[in-house]
Amino acid sequence: MAAQQKSGRDVRLATEILKQRFGDRLLTGESIREQHAHTTTYLPNQPPDSVIYAENAEDVSWIVSVCAEHGCPVIPFGAGSSLEGQLNAPEGGVSIDMSGMNQVVEVHPEDLTVTVQPGITRKALNVQLRDTGLFFPIDPGADASIGGMASTRASGTNAVRYGTMKDNVLSLRAVMADGREIRTSTRAKKSAAGYDLTRLLVGAEGSLGVITELTLKLHGAPETIVGGLCNFPTVTDACNAAIQTIQYGIPVARIELLDEVQIKACNAYSKLSLAERPTVFVEFHGTEASTTEQSALFGEIIADCNGTDFQWTANEKKRQQLWQARHDAYWAAKSLRPGAEALVTDACVPISRLADCVEETSADIRENGLLAPIVGHVGDGNFHTSVLIDLNDKHELAQAKAFSERLSERAIGMGGTCTGEHGVGQGKQAYLDSELGDAVDFMRTIKQALDPANIMNPGKIFS
Amino acid sequence: MAAQQKSGRDVRLATEILKQRFGDRLLTGESIREQHAHTTTYLPNQPPDSVIYAENAEDVSWIVSVCAEHGCPVIPFGAGSSLEGQLNAPEGGVSIDMSGMNQVVEVHPEDLTVTVQPGITRKALNVQLRDTGLFFPIDPGADASIGGMASTRASGTNAVRYGTMKDNVLSLRAVMADGREIRTSTRAKKSAAGYDLTRLLVGAEGSLGVITELTLKLHGAPETIVGGLCNFPTVTDACNAAIQTIQYGIPVARIELLDEVQIKACNAYSKLSLAERPTVFVEFHGTEASTTEQSALFGEIIADCNGTDFQWTANEKKRQQLWQARHDAYWAAKSLRPGAEALVTDACVPISRLADCVEETSADIRENGLLAPIVGHVGDGNFHTSVLIDLNDKHELAQAKAFSERLSERAIGMGGTCTGEHGVGQGKQAYLDSELGDAVDFMRTIKQALDPANIMNPGKIFS
Repeated sequence: MAAQQKSGRDVRLATEILKQRFGDRLLTGESIREQHAHTTTYLPNQPPDSVIYAENAEDVSWIVSVCAEHGCPVIPFGAGSSLEGQLNAPEGGVSIDMSGMNQVVEVHPEDLTVTVQPGITRKALNVQLRDTGLFFPIDPGADASIGGMASTRASGTNAVRYGTMKDNVLSLRAVMADGREIRTSTRAKKSAAGYDLTRLLVGAEGSLGVITELTLKLHGAPETIVGGLCNFPTVTDACNAAIQTIQYGIPVARIELLDEVQIKACNAYSKLSLAERPTVFVEFHGTEASTTEQSALFGEIIADCNGTDFQWTANEKKRQQLWQARHDAYWAAKSLRPGAEALVTDACVPISRLADCVEETSADIRENGLLAPIVGHVGDGNFHTSVLIDLNDKHELAQAKAFSERLSERAIGMGGTCTGEHGVGQGKQAYLDSELGDAVDFMRTIKQALDPANIMNPGKIFS
Repeated sequence: MAAQQKSGRDVRLATEILKQRFGDRLLTGESIREQHAHTTTYLPNQPPDSVIYAENAEDVSWIVSVCAEHGCPVIPFGAGSSLEGQLNAPEGGVSIDMSGMNQVVEVHPEDLTVTVQPGITRKALNVQLRDTGLFFPIDPGADASIGGMASTRASGTNAVRYGTMKDNVLSLRAVMADGREIRTSTRAKKSAAGYDLTRLLVGAEGSLGVITELTLKLHGAPETIVGGLCNFPTVTDACNAAIQTIQYGIPVARIELLDEVQIKACNAYSKLSLAERPTVFVEFHGTEASTTEQSALFGEIIADCNGTDFQWTANEKKRQQLWQARHDAYWAAKSLRPGAEALVTDACVPISRLADCVEETSADIRENGLLAPIVGHVGDGNFHTSVLIDLNDKHELAQAKAFSERLSERAIGMGGTCTGEHGVGQGKQAYLDSELGDAVDFMRTIKQALDPANIMNPGKIFS
């Protein structure tokens, strides 16, 4: 079937037809194509045949219709910050750059909703929302596009309190594989009207449709934000503090772990002088009274978990200073070894297994002599390691892949997942069957039914 | 296609084969069959050909495999409290009674999760959780089964704070149309591992698979619960109080509207002496300090919305007394007209349009001389009317259906949905296209792909 589909692809003809309509908005230069396959990872760059800058849903619909007719792959591109090769074009095709579709369509502050085009980034959205007293909380670190965040089911630091993209997309519009644009739901806060196509498209990584508009839930900007950090003798102690915080029901807004290697990297990169020990960064949102109460409770928990040097503040500037190491963590990690690429893992386990999983992973890193700082959204049981490798060294790459495999299997063995928030893309396909077994067959059936010619971001999630 | 499928059904043969395995657990008596199609609505009773009491997932898998071979419809039955004909068997077939699969499989208090069989009811589950300090918050009113609640994407009074079934099912097991049981996800709190089959099955009304196990999120039982009620001169004022409560960001746990007709019914049914005016019932969950703060803020809002007689208490017994009218609302409504059946509507609109929608609906009821008390989960923009009708009077039925149609179209016209929490079943099919247009085609495509012989609860959602 796959071979038949591939032989049915006429990318060249599709590109010619598209060129007639889009003219200068269709680009085929090597650097622009490579940039649109940019994976920010160890995965090889597989550029599309062309890049089109879409201006509206009609463009997208037109592109997909032409591609459907000629079996040409379609890869939607937002901000290029995905981590599992979601933007690569292993079978060629056209990358639709959505960055020009970056408008706020309508804000309904009275309903706590906003409707946006997919190319808007989360930071740009929050700048535009500033006057409403509302904000969109999902923060995956990178200034990702909202459409891309939905497509990978992103979450990040605030998810422990506000949920993930799955919880914050109310409705969306998408161009499906036959070129038709659908709207998956209404603006009602809840609905029992048929299958949840919203949640089916969130996390589908562009493999079922191209998202062209999203209606998001907004939240009241907190009256008071208190941020802080504290140190622990071991990652296990740090994880236990996070576990107790969640089990105690403290509505922490962010709770992040950086291990001693990551802190060392941050000190060097951000010119800080933090104690080079496992460190937990926290943030509380609420009223003055409730954030004070939460900070005090958290203080008791960390004392119980051998935590020391708890510093916290409600002053925004000081808070940003305290949190700077966390904000710079990704680039700091990469700077530990200039020229190296990072293989970023994404295990997520039930919170009760977090300390075990981090501890075993830490031991694995040490035993195998890897350079791999750990950063965790520990309130959700989710943590990343960035294994820094020289891509030209096959042995290093193989070693990093073997580590990633052990970590994925470790997380799955503890009742968790190989990917908490980065998605499957190309990088995690090997573990999906092991994690979900026969369920993957039914995912494939859905894919085949909704995209019979396999043109929507082929080769992602499964291949 | 549909005709071909129907002609491919051999229900009699399937039933004979099933009888050989299940013996006394397969029943064909008229009353038991009618009871399993019980719709608690105006919809005609369409009994299945047989009822099988399942004891485990292997039973379900075996039944579905046999039914798949012979094109025999399979209708999962939980507690029989659905409201849109989800349990009817318009094409005959076998009803799988899941009420015997009612065990708690495992509680993980340290992860705030519980794994249960689908037949357990929400009340029974919460009794079993009592010692853990945790609870499962979703409360649709009836003591529904957890499997049924997932299948209809139920929500109810607590949803304004805790979300709906969509938000509280972490993972599930289901027997798919080929008889295979799958597990949709892990116990990790979040995941980006492929398509969200959990959310696809939640709300699918048994039309894609039979749910055989669910892992649910639990919440800490609140330290303090404060409950209260107050009166308003008009439903518009009452709605405005709810709207402001949400917009102000008060984390109200329940906020319910009963109109004056419903209060009158409750006074008669529950022997109360409430002022016969639109009334809002509220509940706050939190610490003593936070619930006091929330109640005080709510007091300010209702003063602003012409509310009077705000009574509230943290004493559990008194709270139950204050809330009694709300708890008895369904039966009180039916007792307004003994012998009558209720056509229950389920509109849900963006909160900013709630007052408009309730006001116009109230006027519609008055102008058409209907007897139709209004009860609303107003914090979510969701409200029900129970149109009481004599089913033998065709004129009354037609009038009620016309009202329901106007209300559905009114809600859709305001950016809302014809069904906030009851599902589509048989009763709401007419409005689904109007609400979601082409998206329904893709739902059908998924249905056809996952259930090619159309055996899983056929004739529901779409037909």
